[in-house]
Amino acid sequence: KSGEMAKLAQLVDNDVFRAYATYTTIVLLKMMLMSLITAYFRVTRKAFANPEDTASFGKGESAKKYLRTDADVERVRRGHQNDLENIVPFLGIGLLYALSGPELSTALLHFRIFVGARIAHTFAYLIPLPQPGRGLSWAVAYAVTISMAYKVLKTALYL
Amino acid sequence: KSGEMAKLAQLVDNDVFRAYATYTTIVLLKMMLMSLITAYFRVTRKAFANPEDTASFGKGESAKKYLRTDADVERVRRGHQNDLENIVPFLGIGLLYALSGPELSTALLHFRIFVGARIAHTFAYLIPLPQPGRGLSWAVAYAVTISMAYKVLKTALYL
Amino acid sequence: KSGEMAKLAQLVDNDVFRAYATYTTIVLLKMMLMSLITAYFRVTRKAFANPEDTASFGKGESAKKYLRTDADVERVRRGHQNDLENIVPFLGIGLLYALSGPELSTALLHFRIFVGARIAHTFAYLIPLPQPGRGLSWAVAYAVTISMAYKVLKTALYL
Repeated sequence: KSGEMAKLAQLVDNDVFRAYATYTTIVLLKMMLMSLITAYFRVTRKAFANPEDTASFGKGESAKKYLRTDADVERVRRGHQNDLENIVPFLGIGLLYALSGPELSTALLHFRIFVGARIAHTFAYLIPLPQPGRGLSWAVAYAVTISMAYKVLKTALYL
Repeated sequence: KSGEMAKLAQLVDNDVFRAYATYTTIVLLKMMLMSLITAYFRVTRKAFANPEDTASFGKGESAKKYLRTDADVERVRRGHQNDLENIVPFLGIGLLYALSGPELSTALLHFRIFVGARIAHTFAYLIPLPQPGRGLSWAVAYAVTISMAYKVLKTALYL
Repeated sequence: KSGEMAKLAQLVDNDVFRAYATYTTIVLLKMMLMSLITAYFRVTRKAFANPEDTASFGKGESAKKYLRTDADVERVRRGHQNDLENIVPFLGIGLLYALSGPELSTALLHFRIFVGARIAHTFAYLIPLPQPGRGLSWAVAYAVTISMAYKVLKTALYL
């Protein structure tokens, strides 16, 4: 059993895989932060989606008025959704890319730009910055994922 | 080739990895169940999102009235969305955690609490239970994911 | 270090794993395409979600009228959401399935049918085809994922 553990440890000892683990964890934590920001705006803006969430504001009509959408809440939720749409491909393609034997420096470049661009995207969405700030940060992370996908298909293609 | 297969088999022979495989598959199947529940409510409540889905109810206005939202359908969809937002981080961070060499008993504790909390979250959402039932189950699974992320970063950090 | 790289390369040299890498990358790229289609419809239909996205149309009321939903945009977004709900389980369960030592021919059958069904689902959604076209393509990909989950649990079950 300790032999197996050693084998697994070798995977985590590999620098490219460690970089993937680090940047993936960071960008997933960033995505998870969106839940907290949504909750913060729901509470401060008093804008909820479920009747049971407004029960503490009293019963009947007095609570019902808090079942509503709020522009700030919806903005955070759109940012969260955009994270899902873009970080899920990174999660899968990035893992396969890390296993496809890229140069460490090239891999780091991909991971750093992707995570930097997604963090910039969140700021651009939440502040919000004028366009093309958000669009550009989205496109950079998108292009990095395409570049990793190209390397995966070039290395591993088996149809 | 059989050597490679053996190597892969070793990964699945590792107890921590097997536990990750088991609990991840269970929680993903649970998430997939949300699609069936949504479909069930769409059909029984006659509340659809696409015109082509209402064609069997006849043509024109008689079918158009079923293009509507329904409180029960929307509730299941919010539960499904919350699953996506929380199970995607578990999928990625949990895999890296399983490869970071945790103690088997510690890993089992993390996986069991996460999956138990997410199943509780689904019941809390669909019944629905009064708050803080749903909030608490959400927070427990969230905290477990943060704990695994901490272990991954402590073990593999490479920036 | 080159020993570790060799070890990783062996993973990618495994035919089942290469097939997983190939089909996962293809289906994730297909999902990413939904973002571009959404953007295309947002621009051509002039239907945006964020005020900062309409700034180029002028200020005040003249720009505000483009903050609206559009049937075509919403259709693409539903297709994208359905991708997320179904490709995320494939990403996780498929990886574990590929590591569970299936026969190459069986694995290829699963991956090809899943990806084919999801591509058919996208066409069925966007054209749109009359039902049960979309429903059937959804169900086929769903059944393939269940079949892979069964193999994973049979091979790796550790509760």
